[in-house]
Amino acid sequence: MNSSPLLAELIEALRCLPGVGGKSAQRMAFHLLERERERGSRLARVMAEAMEKIGHCERCRNFSEQPLCTLCASSSRDRQVLCVVESPTELAAIEQATGYRGQYFVLMGRLSPLDGLGPEELGLAKLTQRLGEGEIEELIIATNPTVEGDATAHYLAQLARAGGVRPTRLAYGVPLGGELEYVDRSTLAHAFGGRQILD
Amino acid sequence: MNSSPLLAELIEALRCLPGVGGKSAQRMAFHLLERERERGSRLARVMAEAMEKIGHCERCRNFSEQPLCTLCASSSRDRQVLCVVESPTELAAIEQATGYRGQYFVLMGRLSPLDGLGPEELGLAKLTQRLGEGEIEELIIATNPTVEGDATAHYLAQLARAGGVRPTRLAYGVPLGGELEYVDRSTLAHAFGGRQILD
Ligand SMILES: [Zn+2]
Ligand SMILES: [Zn+2]
Repeated sequence: MNSSPLLAELIEALRCLPGVGGKSAQRMAFHLLERERERGSRLARVMAEAMEKIGHCERCRNFSEQPLCTLCASSSRDRQVLCVVESPTELAAIEQATGYRGQYFVLMGRLSPLDGLGPEELGLAKLTQRLGEGEIEELIIATNPTVEGDATAHYLAQLARAGGVRPTRLAYGVPLGGELEYVDRSTLAHAFGGRQILD
Repeated sequence: MNSSPLLAELIEALRCLPGVGGKSAQRMAFHLLERERERGSRLARVMAEAMEKIGHCERCRNFSEQPLCTLCASSSRDRQVLCVVESPTELAAIEQATGYRGQYFVLMGRLSPLDGLGPEELGLAKLTQRLGEGEIEELIIATNPTVEGDATAHYLAQLARAGGVRPTRLAYGVPLGGELEYVDRSTLAHAFGGRQILD
């Protein structure tokens, strides 16, 4: 029996967080109530605002509460290089591990016909348009080294060539079958630095 | 560089959750934004309400958004037995592991003079009053088997005897120096069933 219906509701609601089961959810709820009410209230406010206001950058599809994300709006990023990633997680990993100063394009997925993810769902028309604008010289393809990531990379390389842009891919060194998100920084930085021209 | 100031704020705010560092916070934020917006918004609402409305039951000091918690308000709980625990975490563990049907008293701490926690902070005047009402026959002392938990148990046993109430404590079987919260259910159930009269 639970002492408080609202507490039971909080514990249940916390389980929407990844990796949080019943026991962790209970520990989180008690921790917030016993010791972190102010920070818990702040988290609730920020979370509500984020869920409502964060959409996608109209240029690179990354998360943004503005029409253009901070990266696309920045005047200090190199506009000759465009790096394509599957998701914001991989973008964050590359930003944190490498000295990359170019632009990004976030697929928000990978080509996966069985899941109904085709070129349209990944915003590839927008990417094709950017490749055709003549500003980009290199397309760094940083999809995950999985079967679907490889197929996506192959497709993207064709798009690049059709737009007269040189496609490159991260050097192997990233463990095969792994997810970029979990690679240690130095391996990721090495693979990024040693990217190969696809031909 | 982060794509969104609001996203950066959400990642930072998530770190108030116990056991959540920078990398988990980032993963949680991306997960909510990519896949769980509705549940994330609901979590935010429930969390805001819980931080604001959940106080303490005026009878047992457990968390409650009502003056009396569900357990104290229930007519189906045995009023002859009172179990004292340090925190709602231990209460939840006992409720989930044992068939206990009595009442509870939650200290919200343990006697710890160095941390400024004395009888007043633990609400012991309220406990003494309940012990003196004549309804309670047994006081089950389920403080943690730590130095401070043992000292608290000793103090509570004296209060019980002074009120003419039989004090008992969980049987050993709970690992010494451990925290009730982490004990497996069957060990805890066994220790609870085999509680000893203190004399
Ligand atoms: Zn952008
Ligand atoms: Zn109560």
